[in-house]
Amino acid sequence: MEMSAMDPGRNDIGRIVAEIAEEMRGHAHRGKVADYIPPLACVPVEKFGLAVVMADGTVHCAGDCDEPFSIQSISKVFALTLVLGAVGDQLWKRVGREPSGSAFNSIVQLETEHGIPRNPFINAGAIVVCDVLLGGLQPREAIGQMLRFVRELAGDDTIAIDETVARAEQETGFRNMALANYMRAFGNIHAPVDLVLGTYFHFCALAMSCRQLALAGRFLMADGRNPVSGFSVVTPRRARRINALMMSCGHYDNSGDFAYRIGLPGKSGVGGGILAVVPGIASIAVWSPGLNRSGNSHLGQLALERLVQKTGWSVFEPRVGSQA
Amino acid sequence: MEMSAMDPGRNDIGRIVAEIAEEMRGHAHRGKVADYIPPLACVPVEKFGLAVVMADGTVHCAGDCDEPFSIQSISKVFALTLVLGAVGDQLWKRVGREPSGSAFNSIVQLETEHGIPRNPFINAGAIVVCDVLLGGLQPREAIGQMLRFVRELAGDDTIAIDETVARAEQETGFRNMALANYMRAFGNIHAPVDLVLGTYFHFCALAMSCRQLALAGRFLMADGRNPVSGFSVVTPRRARRINALMMSCGHYDNSGDFAYRIGLPGKSGVGGGILAVVPGIASIAVWSPGLNRSGNSHLGQLALERLVQKTGWSVFEPRVGSQA
Amino acid sequence: MEMSAMDPGRNDIGRIVAEIAEEMRGHAHRGKVADYIPPLACVPVEKFGLAVVMADGTVHCAGDCDEPFSIQSISKVFALTLVLGAVGDQLWKRVGREPSGSAFNSIVQLETEHGIPRNPFINAGAIVVCDVLLGGLQPREAIGQMLRFVRELAGDDTIAIDETVARAEQETGFRNMALANYMRAFGNIHAPVDLVLGTYFHFCALAMSCRQLALAGRFLMADGRNPVSGFSVVTPRRARRINALMMSCGHYDNSGDFAYRIGLPGKSGVGGGILAVVPGIASIAVWSPGLNRSGNSHLGQLALERLVQKTGWSVFEPRVGSQA
Amino acid sequence: MEMSAMDPGRNDIGRIVAEIAEEMRGHAHRGKVADYIPPLACVPVEKFGLAVVMADGTVHCAGDCDEPFSIQSISKVFALTLVLGAVGDQLWKRVGREPSGSAFNSIVQLETEHGIPRNPFINAGAIVVCDVLLGGLQPREAIGQMLRFVRELAGDDTIAIDETVARAEQETGFRNMALANYMRAFGNIHAPVDLVLGTYFHFCALAMSCRQLALAGRFLMADGRNPVSGFSVVTPRRARRINALMMSCGHYDNSGDFAYRIGLPGKSGVGGGILAVVPGIASIAVWSPGLNRSGNSHLGQLALERLVQKTGWSVFEPRVGSQA
Repeated sequence: MEMSAMDPGRNDIGRIVAEIAEEMRGHAHRGKVADYIPPLACVPVEKFGLAVVMADGTVHCAGDCDEPFSIQSISKVFALTLVLGAVGDQLWKRVGREPSGSAFNSIVQLETEHGIPRNPFINAGAIVVCDVLLGGLQPREAIGQMLRFVRELAGDDTIAIDETVARAEQETGFRNMALANYMRAFGNIHAPVDLVLGTYFHFCALAMSCRQLALAGRFLMADGRNPVSGFSVVTPRRARRINALMMSCGHYDNSGDFAYRIGLPGKSGVGGGILAVVPGIASIAVWSPGLNRSGNSHLGQLALERLVQKTGWSVFEPRVGSQA
Repeated sequence: MEMSAMDPGRNDIGRIVAEIAEEMRGHAHRGKVADYIPPLACVPVEKFGLAVVMADGTVHCAGDCDEPFSIQSISKVFALTLVLGAVGDQLWKRVGREPSGSAFNSIVQLETEHGIPRNPFINAGAIVVCDVLLGGLQPREAIGQMLRFVRELAGDDTIAIDETVARAEQETGFRNMALANYMRAFGNIHAPVDLVLGTYFHFCALAMSCRQLALAGRFLMADGRNPVSGFSVVTPRRARRINALMMSCGHYDNSGDFAYRIGLPGKSGVGGGILAVVPGIASIAVWSPGLNRSGNSHLGQLALERLVQKTGWSVFEPRVGSQA
Repeated sequence: MEMSAMDPGRNDIGRIVAEIAEEMRGHAHRGKVADYIPPLACVPVEKFGLAVVMADGTVHCAGDCDEPFSIQSISKVFALTLVLGAVGDQLWKRVGREPSGSAFNSIVQLETEHGIPRNPFINAGAIVVCDVLLGGLQPREAIGQMLRFVRELAGDDTIAIDETVARAEQETGFRNMALANYMRAFGNIHAPVDLVLGTYFHFCALAMSCRQLALAGRFLMADGRNPVSGFSVVTPRRARRINALMMSCGHYDNSGDFAYRIGLPGKSGVGGGILAVVPGIASIAVWSPGLNRSGNSHLGQLALERLVQKTGWSVFEPRVGSQA
Repeated sequence: MEMSAMDPGRNDIGRIVAEIAEEMRGHAHRGKVADYIPPLACVPVEKFGLAVVMADGTVHCAGDCDEPFSIQSISKVFALTLVLGAVGDQLWKRVGREPSGSAFNSIVQLETEHGIPRNPFINAGAIVVCDVLLGGLQPREAIGQMLRFVRELAGDDTIAIDETVARAEQETGFRNMALANYMRAFGNIHAPVDLVLGTYFHFCALAMSCRQLALAGRFLMADGRNPVSGFSVVTPRRARRINALMMSCGHYDNSGDFAYRIGLPGKSGVGGGILAVVPGIASIAVWSPGLNRSGNSHLGQLALERLVQKTGWSVFEPRVGSQA
């Protein structure tokens, strides 16, 4: 049975979060943990965390919600936010805004589109984002800036980069090296490729818990402001636009299916995390390391699907009170 | 300056619609009218219509809002709705739900993905939808069913199919014949190709005015119900999902940009029309025959961008009242 | 051990042909008979024929060398010869001369190269060849012309078209219909698609024995002349160029391997036949219906490899007498 | 008028070579000199050299036939010969033998074919060849081995590598770095990418004159033996097979046209050189730095076309004496 679209109360959300975590605990099919680097391969498939931060600051958590995991491609959302702050819409000369229609690390599209990656959430696009950030910075500075940024967004100074992950990525990242060199051949990477990739791999190696991640995502549900400090992170328009990109392109070649089943802006990572945004209502982080064939968290997507069914939070749901 | 997110009153909407039509009237850059068939090529580029149907039934109109135009690919939304009513989720075995990441009539993707089109809103996908509809019907019956369906949705029995357009499509539709035969070679078209395409071309040849189109789109903003009759057209979940598909895939290889700039589920056609949905709030139709390079109405997109700026209707806007 | 490059005498050729047929008779791995149409699927995999026509007219035959089989794509050589006679180098405005680098019925290349097929020996290219032939003829006339042409080349009026094959091709040729319609969308097919394909399918349905095929291929080894009548079929330059095309493009995506292993101009068909040319020395036809993964006769290729090893007939072999 | 196929005498060859050089001297359309690195960009477009080494050792030269130029991709023939000597047919597990059907540095094919390049004469294939050579050697050793090899083949110890070219290639070779990293991601490059490319770029930077190049190519016309020393470089079969690969794949996406117009095994380089082989008769080197759109020497191809017309040397020409 499908829930009606009434907004659940705060107590209800706590109960719903607990129910979903309980339901996921017993789930037999959990997908396959990423194994291309040892630090990811050794994460137990049983892990599951869920955190929901409401617009008023309330936090609802369940499962392994305080255990840091490798956020991987979710970092692309924060990197995009940083770079838009630095160069604004200039970015769009070097990166597109369309879904890729193919696997997340495809190089074919770069050939037919002359080195311009389709969007900032595929690897090639995020590598260009790093290159733009390095326009005025050393890698060390850019990495420091990113770390300070997510710590401030989450209000948590304990967030760190997992150097073991960063190193492992660097040692095996031949496909990303291919992408970066290929774009450099088209003139769309300016800094030395190893510096760009060093920065990129450190961003991917950010380790955050569901709680930290949901807190860091608050500005995306709150018109670009940090709802606690009230400070503006980005303009309202930019917040909406980042959400739109997450909706169109946030899940590699599974983005259409995510919109269809869940109907929220979201961004996934191969560490098994997903950040999802309910504009005006909630920032959500979920983590389960087993991936489906598209490289997105299998249980993470399922948990979000349940959450949206129980809350009516899909952006395609008629708005609360609007029809009375 | 960007509008705050307060919901404009009804009088305001009427004023905003008039303002936008006035602004568009003087616009110099209007794109290029589709010229692959004479009945489209001869439409004056100056035409502009806009219709907004509110949840309470109020209709705000401006410009050439009562002049019928060829809705072309917008018919794919109604065909999808019909076929989901007929076979339900079985459809998804034969059509995907992902954005195509390439031009709307690309045949390359069909080769690499073995005859399964990426989504029901590209030509190949809509041709499969027609084939599924013909599973139990003659072309004449399917076309009649479609006509009755949109007439009922719009509450307007004068809606008709432009046979001149249907015939012209048929005479020049070699690329669609290629797509259909190609999918038949993979076993994903079952009925004779000419019957499937005859049906498809008649759907595309539906002629509707902005007012009729916005009225026909009401069920998508109202949880699947016809807000006047109260009758259910589709379940609330299905309405949301059709909206999600329109968001992901509604504008060919320009869908990401549409989400980024406008942030509403929408579907465009090469006749220059766009249908857009504000869940719970409004059904919108706009028409201006000049197209941009992606094959979408240039002024139509601009008009919707203005409308969303002035109303705060983007689905990525924090929801009204939710943050108080 | 590898043969030295001395030219074997005539008696030797007869012995070699018999030896090879004997060797092939016992061969366990024979590939897979084409099964996309019943008339091909029912051909016994055990069949094997070999015919070698020498420059002086001597014919050496073995096995099922007098049993007609469907020559299929080998007909593309004769169609090309006919069309070059009709329009000359004008043809190359509408067809390329490069190997395709992909499967024989790929449609992808047509998209990126705007409807110009890579060469006249892939299906798309041969369909254009038929369209050019139909420039001044009815299908019936073109088919009659082709039949008279191969009968004259082979000096055998019993050669016929297998109507059962032609009809079966037509009923299942959706991929070829896709190719033809696709090229028509690019303006590279002028006649009605069904007439072009009707002609094409009749050419493919030519039934010839190895003996007839080798006789028909004589002009390609003899500087363009029929060595018996002495009449010129094509100029010496054109004969060389057709041979060059057979070398580059004669075996779909297996042409490089054929050149590597056998080193002769050749053209294969999915009926299991191969026509090969030794310029100045011999015209060869071999038939074994089992195909390898590239769609070429498995034993046919092996038999030719043996023949070339035993005779030193590869065009990459230092020429006889030239080094003395 | 077309020459008959009689073998021209030795005196004739000298005259023909002089005539062709004279004809080319005045040619207006010379193509465009490669400009991706300064050492190539500064080569005067007027340069033209031609050298023909006959089976009996006679050398016919004209124009700038003793001026060294960057042989670039022609080195791929010598690298292939070396690596076949080292590992034999094992090589074919890691490189294909089919023409590429696309531009010489295309990365698309690598994606669809899982990191196996189509042939050893496209960049990706030659990079794998270098990687295999480095299986048991340091780059310095491999480069030394190559230098000794071409010096011995040409009988000329003055042949050298142009370090300026090697360094320039390395500084701008982002596309080759992309190719190498991409293949490494598929496991088809084993040595560190920078060592493989360092070796590759040094091979490409070999500087040779037409005379030296034609001398170095003698083994390919002489059944694998050095015709002066009589020593075997490769077996006769391998010599034929290298020739076959040059015929199929020697001119990037222009190989079919080269076979069609010239009909000889050949290999071109972006420095404007072409090595061509007439089995049993001659080894030919031509040089003119202006390139056509496919990246092959414009005048070089024209000169070879004239030479073949005047001598009847196409391998598709009926063999001398064979028809008498």
